[in-house]
Amino acid sequence: MSRFLDERLASLTPYVPGEQPRDMRYVKLNTNESPFPPSPRVAEALSKERINRLNLYPDPEALGLRCALAEHYGLRESRIIMGNGSDELLAFCFMAFCGQGRGVAYPAVSYGFYPVYARLCCLNALEIPLRDNFTVCPSDYFWLGRTIVIANPNAPTGIALPRVQLESIAAANPDNVVIVDEAYVDFGAESALPLIEKYENLVVIQTFSKSRNLAGMRLGFAAANEALIGDLNTIKSSFNPYNLSRLACLAGEAAVRDRLYFAECTGRIMRTREELSKALRALGFTVLPSSANFVFAAPPRMSGGEYYLALKARGVLVRYFDKSGLRDFVRITVGDDAQMRVLLDKTAEILEEPK
Amino acid sequence: MSRFLDERLASLTPYVPGEQPRDMRYVKLNTNESPFPPSPRVAEALSKERINRLNLYPDPEALGLRCALAEHYGLRESRIIMGNGSDELLAFCFMAFCGQGRGVAYPAVSYGFYPVYARLCCLNALEIPLRDNFTVCPSDYFWLGRTIVIANPNAPTGIALPRVQLESIAAANPDNVVIVDEAYVDFGAESALPLIEKYENLVVIQTFSKSRNLAGMRLGFAAANEALIGDLNTIKSSFNPYNLSRLACLAGEAAVRDRLYFAECTGRIMRTREELSKALRALGFTVLPSSANFVFAAPPRMSGGEYYLALKARGVLVRYFDKSGLRDFVRITVGDDAQMRVLLDKTAEILEEPK
Repeated sequence: MSRFLDERLASLTPYVPGEQPRDMRYVKLNTNESPFPPSPRVAEALSKERINRLNLYPDPEALGLRCALAEHYGLRESRIIMGNGSDELLAFCFMAFCGQGRGVAYPAVSYGFYPVYARLCCLNALEIPLRDNFTVCPSDYFWLGRTIVIANPNAPTGIALPRVQLESIAAANPDNVVIVDEAYVDFGAESALPLIEKYENLVVIQTFSKSRNLAGMRLGFAAANEALIGDLNTIKSSFNPYNLSRLACLAGEAAVRDRLYFAECTGRIMRTREELSKALRALGFTVLPSSANFVFAAPPRMSGGEYYLALKARGVLVRYFDKSGLRDFVRITVGDDAQMRVLLDKTAEILEEPK
Repeated sequence: MSRFLDERLASLTPYVPGEQPRDMRYVKLNTNESPFPPSPRVAEALSKERINRLNLYPDPEALGLRCALAEHYGLRESRIIMGNGSDELLAFCFMAFCGQGRGVAYPAVSYGFYPVYARLCCLNALEIPLRDNFTVCPSDYFWLGRTIVIANPNAPTGIALPRVQLESIAAANPDNVVIVDEAYVDFGAESALPLIEKYENLVVIQTFSKSRNLAGMRLGFAAANEALIGDLNTIKSSFNPYNLSRLACLAGEAAVRDRLYFAECTGRIMRTREELSKALRALGFTVLPSSANFVFAAPPRMSGGEYYLALKARGVLVRYFDKSGLRDFVRITVGDDAQMRVLLDKTAEILEEPK
């Protein structure tokens, strides 16, 4: 830390993404990437001719991409804003909607970035415990007088709330913004997107990193009514107006327009997730019911930390959260069949080993 | 504006980038883009194989690209941080280094984004007038007790300070950060990069949008001592850790490693700038001495606004600033020979017309 840094930021502990090791090749099941390449239309869209026009600025409004999303989801494009990953949009939301001493509330077990944003924006943050079965209880979020952030499905549990329960949270907080972070929604949960017409306080955020196989491209979007999108555009244009590259716009549009490939990839992930959950349960694991592209699972007769280390020693990376209430578990990304076979083989090996 | 927006941000007026018109094809000389495509190595680097790996997250540290820059500039890579365009890094600097009531100071005529950042961060901002000849006077920035931002060369004047004068500003503000925004430095000005070893309060910011022909890719970097870079990394990792796409990293590295093409493109721009300045002066224009890829020029017998409109009606877009002290001028991007020919032909036409 330099002596020039704003004191209020001096205690900031940045978000720590999953390990990106350089020491050896792992079967990487720790950052919830898709095991499949992006739609073949992406490579077609990023032609040499288009690369050679990178000397020109991108469209700061990303109109083509927003229109593709609008068409896909049956929304008006004026109700969509694009972000350099959904993380950027979450940051804009924390900056925009938590002022006037409102503060923010989110589940105590959820995406680890929320507390970081709260600190960055110097906000009063209320962390609401999950229920004993790891679920978010909607009525815990009624009439809080705070901006609310809910990941749905939640991370790292993978458990989803039905849309009607999200609606109850939006309805019970008419004077505060409710942000639904749907990073993992395309793997079997119900999106809150149809609710944005009805609730002027609702923001829905999605990413291209998981279900659209584009983690490396950095793309996310937020949908809400025009007034909220206008606010987010004001922040964006006061921060980084050209936040998406020309190639990100083109890649995103190509990915959205390939509905078939999207359905195929998400379908395969969901099928593999069910197979994986079944296989792990057969080995004695506790596996939470996941609607995401990962499972949160507790091995028998050992802690999550021990299992994580044993897997890592065998070349398989999963994510362990050294946090109260989560230490029995690890989060395992649903990969392709070959990756799952390695995971299950190594797991069987670990469980057979004498302690 | 929604009723949920933080009051402090309610009066925010976003930065307005140059027009990106959709109504017709213009000769676009209004946003200081390069007229040349990126290095041919960029298209080679963005191969189909690499596009097909976009399902994986990028390296959040952009190590390959930072090493290429470090090699190019003879710096340690630990003294470099990458941004999603230099605008993002400027925003991080305003967030990080202007706290504790320090506030910020910059020239009253400079990059129009500085006042926007100051508002976004709710900072007290001091705008220091230029001298009558449009130059920044270094001693105006001595012992201010504020964070200082200087664009060098300055915009929209194009006038550069020699390195020794920037050094005097850094030396006279040992307890405050001095940010030198070198967006246009590669067109003939002296970079302050060699000074970062000596001044622990100095941050130098550059962009790939101008001299590296990559405005569409969104790439910038900041260089400073490790403590300041550490602070900026803390902000970045608390805001958007994966701020650069895999393709941005690859494109940037390819561009930096093609030294010859870089020299050729910047050399051509500088030569064309001198020819353009001479031609405009021959037509009776006042042209400020530019070290950038644009000229700031005042036409004879008409205002900058009239000239801007007359050019626009003839299909040529330049940038006009409707601001006290600047209304005699327009800013003209230095393009390729064909674009300059159209500009000069249309200008001659306009000047010959009876008023």
